[in-house]
Amino acid sequence: MANPPLYRALDRAVSEYAMLKDGDSVLIGASGGKDSTALAEYLSSLLKRPSGPVFRLEALHVRTEFESQVVPGISGESGDSNSFSQIEELFSVWKIPLHIINVPVLDRLKPGKKMSCWWCSTQRRTELNNFAIKGGFNKIALGHHLDDILETFLMNALGKGELSTMPPVLRYDKYPVRIIRPLCFSDTEMIVRHTKARGYSSSVCTCAYQDNSYRKEARKKLEALTEGSYRKKLMLFESLRNVKKEYLP
Amino acid sequence: MANPPLYRALDRAVSEYAMLKDGDSVLIGASGGKDSTALAEYLSSLLKRPSGPVFRLEALHVRTEFESQVVPGISGESGDSNSFSQIEELFSVWKIPLHIINVPVLDRLKPGKKMSCWWCSTQRRTELNNFAIKGGFNKIALGHHLDDILETFLMNALGKGELSTMPPVLRYDKYPVRIIRPLCFSDTEMIVRHTKARGYSSSVCTCAYQDNSYRKEARKKLEALTEGSYRKKLMLFESLRNVKKEYLP
Repeated sequence: MANPPLYRALDRAVSEYAMLKDGDSVLIGASGGKDSTALAEYLSSLLKRPSGPVFRLEALHVRTEFESQVVPGISGESGDSNSFSQIEELFSVWKIPLHIINVPVLDRLKPGKKMSCWWCSTQRRTELNNFAIKGGFNKIALGHHLDDILETFLMNALGKGELSTMPPVLRYDKYPVRIIRPLCFSDTEMIVRHTKARGYSSSVCTCAYQDNSYRKEARKKLEALTEGSYRKKLMLFESLRNVKKEYLP
Repeated sequence: MANPPLYRALDRAVSEYAMLKDGDSVLIGASGGKDSTALAEYLSSLLKRPSGPVFRLEALHVRTEFESQVVPGISGESGDSNSFSQIEELFSVWKIPLHIINVPVLDRLKPGKKMSCWWCSTQRRTELNNFAIKGGFNKIALGHHLDDILETFLMNALGKGELSTMPPVLRYDKYPVRIIRPLCFSDTEMIVRHTKARGYSSSVCTCAYQDNSYRKEARKKLEALTEGSYRKKLMLFESLRNVKKEYLP
């Protein structure tokens, strides 16, 4: 059977960025959302390929207080509070050990500070890093995809005045782990099409709290630049790999 | 009298990029449009400042076949075919020797090739370079402004897959001249406001032929990114000076 289109985009990323090799220990950051779930499915499928890399594969879900506060109509995805058990089922079918830790991101807020997506993601990322290091993982696989990468590029250029984004492979200075983002060539549409075909697109649920207006604005801007065209998104991504220093101010 | 806002943006560029020094020979590429005309006015005013740099200042207008073919309603500016004489008058008031050469860009087209903005500008640029070199000029000042630079950035990213644009200062490998773009911090609105206040905004006329749809599209995209805000345009420009290589793919 031919690989689905999403897998081709994933294969391209893994190959072009040499993301995986024999002996790797890979920890998936499993949010419960469609992106990291599709990533988990793909990585488990890689282990079944006769000529594929041989690596250890586990996943960590960092649970915050928001997960039980399901607000129907706010979350873009299912408001079913039992949904995470479906994720657990999928990971079990895919033979990926799924660890869950509880992190009270609201409790950790310093007095007077407001809750934000930035704060929550920093907290969860730190837990993920610590878990990976303690568990002997050398790679953390995250579900950020092409649209996320390009939107972050636009947010950083227009909000921080710098050309930067979430790179497909990132080495930390202070942690002995590497971040990999195998979905860097996959856009939302491609992922949704895949997860719908697989029947799990609507069984997942991420944060119900989010009101990330910066991200929403960036999404509109990306749409204005590319008209949603995958070809144009790839071109923009390509430009990020092709910096002509002498032709920049 | 305080300098007009446009002059402040021009001063900033000249200073930050060390564009001019005593003994320079500067040739302005004078299209007849508002941008290079405002640039000429500014450069001539610099020569009158007691503490300003002392340099030689002349201008070249490369005239193509299109200049006499005034098509009312197509050119965004005045369709008055006598308009260039007004430019000559202004340059004379500003004491800038204005040279004019005729270049038949249509005649130079190779058989089967279509006329384009790219072809015309390449032809005119070559003439400008040759004239500068023969005349002993070491700098060519062009009227490209902030919007032009950002639009070219978007066109190059989305059309060529590279991060590049027209830099404020460009050294040629094969020519002993340097390109400077003192309007790099000035946007269209700022220039229009200035030229209107000076009374020459509507007396100028550039190419009546143009149907540069790529440029028009890029203009819309820049608008979508910045909502026309000068502050946001400056931020985007700033990002081009601030490339974080380790956070790019």
